[in-house]
Amino acid sequence: MKINDISQHTLRYDDATFSVNVIDQRLLPHEFKRIELRELSDFCLAISEMTVRGAPLIGITAAFGLALSIRTSVEHVESAYKALLATRPTAINLKWALDTVIASIAENPDQPFIAAIDKAKCMLQDDIRCCEAIGDEGAELIKKISKSKKGPVNILTHCNAGWLATIDWGTALAPIYKADAAGIDLHVWVDETRPRNQGASLTAWELHQQGIAHTLISDNTGGHLMQEGLVDLCIVGTDRTAANGDVCNKIGTYLKALAAKDNDIPFYVALPSSTIDWQLQKGIGNIPIELRDTREITHIEGLSSSGKRETICINSQSNAINYGFDVTPARLISGLITEFGIYEANTQHLLKLRTQLI
Amino acid sequence: MKINDISQHTLRYDDATFSVNVIDQRLLPHEFKRIELRELSDFCLAISEMTVRGAPLIGITAAFGLALSIRTSVEHVESAYKALLATRPTAINLKWALDTVIASIAENPDQPFIAAIDKAKCMLQDDIRCCEAIGDEGAELIKKISKSKKGPVNILTHCNAGWLATIDWGTALAPIYKADAAGIDLHVWVDETRPRNQGASLTAWELHQQGIAHTLISDNTGGHLMQEGLVDLCIVGTDRTAANGDVCNKIGTYLKALAAKDNDIPFYVALPSSTIDWQLQKGIGNIPIELRDTREITHIEGLSSSGKRETICINSQSNAINYGFDVTPARLISGLITEFGIYEANTQHLLKLRTQLI
Repeated sequence: MKINDISQHTLRYDDATFSVNVIDQRLLPHEFKRIELRELSDFCLAISEMTVRGAPLIGITAAFGLALSIRTSVEHVESAYKALLATRPTAINLKWALDTVIASIAENPDQPFIAAIDKAKCMLQDDIRCCEAIGDEGAELIKKISKSKKGPVNILTHCNAGWLATIDWGTALAPIYKADAAGIDLHVWVDETRPRNQGASLTAWELHQQGIAHTLISDNTGGHLMQEGLVDLCIVGTDRTAANGDVCNKIGTYLKALAAKDNDIPFYVALPSSTIDWQLQKGIGNIPIELRDTREITHIEGLSSSGKRETICINSQSNAINYGFDVTPARLISGLITEFGIYEANTQHLLKLRTQLI
Repeated sequence: MKINDISQHTLRYDDATFSVNVIDQRLLPHEFKRIELRELSDFCLAISEMTVRGAPLIGITAAFGLALSIRTSVEHVESAYKALLATRPTAINLKWALDTVIASIAENPDQPFIAAIDKAKCMLQDDIRCCEAIGDEGAELIKKISKSKKGPVNILTHCNAGWLATIDWGTALAPIYKADAAGIDLHVWVDETRPRNQGASLTAWELHQQGIAHTLISDNTGGHLMQEGLVDLCIVGTDRTAANGDVCNKIGTYLKALAAKDNDIPFYVALPSSTIDWQLQKGIGNIPIELRDTREITHIEGLSSSGKRETICINSQSNAINYGFDVTPARLISGLITEFGIYEANTQHLLKLRTQLI
């Protein structure tokens, strides 16, 4: 996608310098800056500190991190694997990506680094194709709604499951980019997504860069908009999907799914099939929910009136707790938009997808 | 209730100086400061700028404002009425309070100021009694839950319907203060309540001042807590209640009510009967929803690292929209806690309450 009208990917690998170049997403929307990752510790910090975030991008960043950690010797592959896996607990892509790299090393033990780095590059290309396919599948939904109404199709999204969460296109936003490119009149409601404000900082920025009409709202607002008939469709991403279609995504997703159900509004989840945890029969109660620093609740970063980046405190006297994700039960989900088509959120229908993957 | 262990009311009237003294709630939780209101414009600004807020407190502040505006002459009573009524569109108490003062003037046309100011003082005392009665009624619910479980009763609340929203005790928080005083072990989940953060700034501060155990959470978190069995009861306030029990309260209330229903958790609304708009047969689509400045979405105020009050910008490039309230349909409400007892949220049962009032 584009930044200042120049197409680029969120992550670039440089074969000459053995380094990975990523966008420092913590600085957005106020500053656009790319940084280099070289050492294992760079990769671990980039993921845990959310310089890079979004389930697919986390996975690919970790894959490159693991590959580069064995460039001179395969000796520390296990500890590198463990260190990368420990950076974030909820997104399953992380484990999937690391396991995929490990398998590629096992297949080519004589050239472990080449095997690993080739696999990481391959995953990067696959992610682009996969997200583009999700975009094509989901765009059909938007086109269908567009035909049935006057005026723009109003789509609500939560958090950032856009281009920034992947290499290109995004998951939840890919259908929006594809439908927009096809000339469909649309408008996006962007949940600010407290406490880290990925909606206000990343989704709004992304949509602005692509010239897509959008409006920023507080996380409390979606229900009212749905009651007033101002939402035609919800699309969100997922960090881990259970085999029964339960979806673990950014905290607050569940509340929007409830409101969509209550107002008979389609609620879709867009995902690469790699976010499905086939070992997990159901999501509720079974997915480790990341507990993050409570400072993310009590402090907020932004630009001061003098244009300087500043962190302010909104409450210093109270305890806080900061769950990163919640689980939306499959019964609230209209469908799962994958690179292989749209699937119903239930065990039986997802088994059909699984047979495609094997 | 107490501030730094000293009991006080949110609003004090001084007969000697014909002035009203209120807490500047915009400065909390970082600074506690009381200010004087004398002129009509002081009162209008205090309400529209949310120096005072909360449906009951808005009503009583407006009552004093109207009374003081006719101290020397009753000539401008109509324009004063209109100016005060226009300060906030959603809370019905405002109109109710102003109409009550006007009626008192009509009853005693020879001494309009004395009639009006006496009525305002009377409303202040009534509010205290009313909120205390709500507290006693609601505390019984908490006591009942306490008997049925081990450990603290976990109560979730949204926005601030506490002492600060009234003269004393509060509405949604009154049952909590009463139950705490009766020795019940309890803990409050405090929704931060974006965009103005009344939960983080006011409810958390109030509870801290009274020594009540509480935890600050993002507005996105309540659904997850309910799924995990960490919420026993929800209590919120209301700015306007329809005759069928639909409740208009701070934006986001509807989402919590949906989650409570989905998890079989009692969801109560605490209100003085003056927040019932008997003319309104149903709430959805019929209550004017205040649209506030979008700067409340894109900017946040807090304390900088140097301890100075600072406003930061979280997004400067996107459009935003800022609805202040939403409507929670009666079907999601377990009961309405009033000063006359707990009523079912339906037309038939509320008619019984109405007969008490006439």
